[in-house]
Amino acid sequence: MNPAHFSSAAALHSVFKPNNMPGVGTPIGTPIGTPIGTPIGTPIGSPIGTPSGTPVHAPALVTASGLRTQLCNVEHLEQLHDPLESSKRLASYLAVDNHFLPLVAAKYSQQLENASTANKADDTPLVVGVGSGSTVVYCAERLGEIKRTFPEILHDLNFICISTGFQSKNLIIENGLRLGLIDNYDKLDMAFDGADECDENLNCIKGGGACLFQEKLVSLSSDKFVVVADYRKKVKNLGSKWSIPIEVIPNSYKYVENQLAKIEGFQKSQLRQGGQFKAGPVVTDNCNCILDVNFGQIANPAELHSKLIQIVGIVETGLFPNKNCIAAYFGNSNGTVDSIVL
Amino acid sequence: MNPAHFSSAAALHSVFKPNNMPGVGTPIGTPIGTPIGTPIGTPIGSPIGTPSGTPVHAPALVTASGLRTQLCNVEHLEQLHDPLESSKRLASYLAVDNHFLPLVAAKYSQQLENASTANKADDTPLVVGVGSGSTVVYCAERLGEIKRTFPEILHDLNFICISTGFQSKNLIIENGLRLGLIDNYDKLDMAFDGADECDENLNCIKGGGACLFQEKLVSLSSDKFVVVADYRKKVKNLGSKWSIPIEVIPNSYKYVENQLAKIEGFQKSQLRQGGQFKAGPVVTDNCNCILDVNFGQIANPAELHSKLIQIVGIVETGLFPNKNCIAAYFGNSNGTVDSIVL
Amino acid sequence: MNPAHFSSAAALHSVFKPNNMPGVGTPIGTPIGTPIGTPIGTPIGSPIGTPSGTPVHAPALVTASGLRTQLCNVEHLEQLHDPLESSKRLASYLAVDNHFLPLVAAKYSQQLENASTANKADDTPLVVGVGSGSTVVYCAERLGEIKRTFPEILHDLNFICISTGFQSKNLIIENGLRLGLIDNYDKLDMAFDGADECDENLNCIKGGGACLFQEKLVSLSSDKFVVVADYRKKVKNLGSKWSIPIEVIPNSYKYVENQLAKIEGFQKSQLRQGGQFKAGPVVTDNCNCILDVNFGQIANPAELHSKLIQIVGIVETGLFPNKNCIAAYFGNSNGTVDSIVL
Amino acid sequence: MNPAHFSSAAALHSVFKPNNMPGVGTPIGTPIGTPIGTPIGTPIGSPIGTPSGTPVHAPALVTASGLRTQLCNVEHLEQLHDPLESSKRLASYLAVDNHFLPLVAAKYSQQLENASTANKADDTPLVVGVGSGSTVVYCAERLGEIKRTFPEILHDLNFICISTGFQSKNLIIENGLRLGLIDNYDKLDMAFDGADECDENLNCIKGGGACLFQEKLVSLSSDKFVVVADYRKKVKNLGSKWSIPIEVIPNSYKYVENQLAKIEGFQKSQLRQGGQFKAGPVVTDNCNCILDVNFGQIANPAELHSKLIQIVGIVETGLFPNKNCIAAYFGNSNGTVDSIVL
Repeated sequence: MNPAHFSSAAALHSVFKPNNMPGVGTPIGTPIGTPIGTPIGTPIGSPIGTPSGTPVHAPALVTASGLRTQLCNVEHLEQLHDPLESSKRLASYLAVDNHFLPLVAAKYSQQLENASTANKADDTPLVVGVGSGSTVVYCAERLGEIKRTFPEILHDLNFICISTGFQSKNLIIENGLRLGLIDNYDKLDMAFDGADECDENLNCIKGGGACLFQEKLVSLSSDKFVVVADYRKKVKNLGSKWSIPIEVIPNSYKYVENQLAKIEGFQKSQLRQGGQFKAGPVVTDNCNCILDVNFGQIANPAELHSKLIQIVGIVETGLFPNKNCIAAYFGNSNGTVDSIVL
Repeated sequence: MNPAHFSSAAALHSVFKPNNMPGVGTPIGTPIGTPIGTPIGTPIGSPIGTPSGTPVHAPALVTASGLRTQLCNVEHLEQLHDPLESSKRLASYLAVDNHFLPLVAAKYSQQLENASTANKADDTPLVVGVGSGSTVVYCAERLGEIKRTFPEILHDLNFICISTGFQSKNLIIENGLRLGLIDNYDKLDMAFDGADECDENLNCIKGGGACLFQEKLVSLSSDKFVVVADYRKKVKNLGSKWSIPIEVIPNSYKYVENQLAKIEGFQKSQLRQGGQFKAGPVVTDNCNCILDVNFGQIANPAELHSKLIQIVGIVETGLFPNKNCIAAYFGNSNGTVDSIVL
Repeated sequence: MNPAHFSSAAALHSVFKPNNMPGVGTPIGTPIGTPIGTPIGTPIGSPIGTPSGTPVHAPALVTASGLRTQLCNVEHLEQLHDPLESSKRLASYLAVDNHFLPLVAAKYSQQLENASTANKADDTPLVVGVGSGSTVVYCAERLGEIKRTFPEILHDLNFICISTGFQSKNLIIENGLRLGLIDNYDKLDMAFDGADECDENLNCIKGGGACLFQEKLVSLSSDKFVVVADYRKKVKNLGSKWSIPIEVIPNSYKYVENQLAKIEGFQKSQLRQGGQFKAGPVVTDNCNCILDVNFGQIANPAELHSKLIQIVGIVETGLFPNKNCIAAYFGNSNGTVDSIVL
Repeated sequence: MNPAHFSSAAALHSVFKPNNMPGVGTPIGTPIGTPIGTPIGTPIGSPIGTPSGTPVHAPALVTASGLRTQLCNVEHLEQLHDPLESSKRLASYLAVDNHFLPLVAAKYSQQLENASTANKADDTPLVVGVGSGSTVVYCAERLGEIKRTFPEILHDLNFICISTGFQSKNLIIENGLRLGLIDNYDKLDMAFDGADECDENLNCIKGGGACLFQEKLVSLSSDKFVVVADYRKKVKNLGSKWSIPIEVIPNSYKYVENQLAKIEGFQKSQLRQGGQFKAGPVVTDNCNCILDVNFGQIANPAELHSKLIQIVGIVETGLFPNKNCIAAYFGNSNGTVDSIVL
């Protein structure tokens, strides 16, 4: 992949790379330079940490950057054994800090304001989707740290996490987060997940782990979607490396294959086998099967998805044309992070 | 429903309506070419009915009308207890006679010709879908009679039936037909099924029994689709009486309901409950659930279906915009049959 | 059924039956030690009900009867339209008061003691199963009232409810209780559920709603199981009125029927059909089917269950030989309640 | 494993072991009566092979050994690239020849006799289960050869094959055999399948491919069960190398693990993960999950299975205590075959 394709984004951020940036703004790539830890005028910490009950006098002071100062400084994290792991962690921490902390700050400020103006308390929960994959692990880790650091804020905000499958369910629980079921909430505020491929417009291919349905449901149920991954997932065009995983009702897979073959650009389709632990085809968490379908490089993901989903038997495709993805963070092999923020 | 909307078809058939027909009433079947009962010049019967082994000398003589003369005469069937039942049976017999017998005749003639010209035998099977519902029962009955009457022809054609669910599986077996699995055949030659609503362009709503997925798969896998039902299923516009049953992945039903509410014309959605034998929601044969969704009268079924199927979580809709439906036969309450043949 | 079989329990409770009680009738609850309504020496209520924050000085005072005085008095509930409904509600309220309140009191007292003795806080949650059925509705209602009345106690105890299916999931949420997933907890403290039949040893038949698997899992995962139902569910011997619902892997049902026929006492087996909303067999929440099997009156439920469960294809049976059921409460048609406490 | 444990069987067969057999090695098949290759007095072949129609005059002459003479001689099969493959093929061919051919001969003789004595024809089909695994492939191959060699006999016997899963379904179809559904037949005559471990009493462990349920259903639905495998599957005691795969309803796996830990001999339990093609746990064809459970060497498989199957949540275990297994054939690494015939 030609890194030049991310140049605009990269350029964008370098413009903002401030040495003296106060408060939030902090554009990621920067992070790494940004003086997190810089003393913030008002001691945000005190009202937050207090045993509560006491009225908070200065709600306006709760800011994302203020919250961030209380967390582990991403610049000074201990290196992991593998530089790539370090950068995946950094990608996730930045994603959470840049998008989740502002959400917390805004919601909590609003809640405090409501309380002080004697408005009725807003009890809609703060609901966040947590996906799976080797990078997302660190998002869950950071979310857990935030909950431990600001237990009362997160409690007051009724912070709940939604999983995209078994792995992320465990991630949520292991990090001390509270697990909810997606069918109990009308919408999610934000979701973090990985991707198998992600282009510069933040269209994605997902489903390498056969959990594409739940992942798409979580991402589209969210107001905002943020991708975290390693650099190998950045591509110029979708379809460069991966086939599109497509979830199919089992007894229709032959029919579906016949229909796929009629779609322009179709190259090959394969019923995914379970490998050594499951004889016969992979069975998804919805009791369906997976066709891995190759269309070569995909010029128009939205158009292709729209054609595919019309085929009887196709439950969902692993094509995620961008609808609400606002940012992607990619860990590089050298410990740095590239990001695209739309 | 205004019967006038079927006037063109009705007019066509009323030409053939015998005034003196005892019992049965409107023999819609008759329009189809050969007058039933007319002596057929060449005794097609003998080579077909004989214990076989003997070479068939005049393959060209195998015609649908010739075959029909060997079956129970639809005009002289014993009345059933209920006139509506009689007319549903008649509707089904006519549907099978008018569409399946020509298929048999054509395929068998071709097979005989291939054999006589020393071409390689065509061993593609003759595959027919059999749906469910109180009218389709009689299609299976007629197909069974045809198989018993022409055992060698149907054996040579490798005649196989595909079910749309548990009920039709039993229907197939009880009528002595050979059951196949849909994922073993690339396509079906023809399918017979009922409908909850059917308009004059042969668009349908199906899924009252929650088996819409398999029914749609079978119908669209077929070259030709034929509807049989009772007169109450004829409507001017879909949506007149029935909601659209929509099959949905269980944990996405809340999300789907939220999306449905944004579609123009949406009135109401309900998660179908199982009733006294199944607490909680109905579970489909694919382990999903059903939303019964009301859009009022549906102006453009194809367009609405196309919008619905894009929603993540919707596996399939019970809207069947006509793609390959060539005819519908409706049993009336008085023993007669109305038909629409496109 | 011969009411005499419940005579011992009836006798026990009739001792406490006040002749002058308006409305309610048999206050089964009363047997439990403290006379309802009796003034409780120490005003336990105040510290509990206060906006909190204030230290509780006399933890030992938290008793079930003390808690009960703060709840709606079961003797003075407004009558429902139907006396049977009133008695079903009473049965449920008594079940919860008699078994859940002591649990709360004991756990909370222990927690307070731990805190006062500087022991590490016990953070194991208080987990309670809530089943389904028309009587259990009132258990959820009472649990919700308890949570609203003692929000801090229940919060401190980390009170979580587990459902046995879709209906009880909704019950839990609608009553403001916190829903958990059974696979996130090692055990439940208590479960409340209905029954289709319950004998005097508290063996049950369940599964009329096809949810027997989840119901059995919840009941056996619990330390203690309490049945609430109406009087029609009390039987001398299981099998008097109901067949045993048996959950079966779909493609094995023929094999299972063949094996069932070899078991002594077998009378009849039927594949449960879905009725008007689901053509073909009922599909359970585990994607299986249900055989309703009749063995006549069942002399030894444990022995029969043990034979049945050995048959390949049987996932679980609706026979619940008593393992941990400590009490049953039955609402009578006249507003009174019968109970069996083992 | 100590080969001595198979000494009784080995001794039996060594009697028949030809010293001068080139290539193949231990022709286990030979024991079965008629020496392979020996000219059979009456040329059974001719009536069988003829275009038919002609009455068969000497039905009694249809014998297994007679049939075998028309098949590829197992002694002269072309060597496969890998001697182990050759011996696995030989194991399967011998299994089919020794057990299926006698069944065909007996059934067909009976059918002919019935016909000649004017008895009503017996139209019960000949139903055979075909499992999966790298050795069973050759059973399907041999069955296909038999069907092609004796098309009329197998047609008259209404020969149908039942699969144990996706792989064996394909095996059946690819070998030109006719696929049936297990729920359409009351019983199977015979089943061939592999095993992960098989002791000298022909108790087995199966389920390495997560298809244990269907495999057990097919094996127990059969009158006779025959194992084919390679030599590594022969063990003195079950549990020597493999854990027991246990199929479990997904949301009960924690409960099941808690119960397993109470059973004597329990060492370890693991929720089987899907690996690279399926994130999270393996999902079985019944939509369940798999616990791989280690009990060390298993002294009494029947007793252990009986305890396990009582646990709520366990659908089926991969322990196959011998109920109807009559023989096992193991391909050795050197091209020879060991067998155990009970």
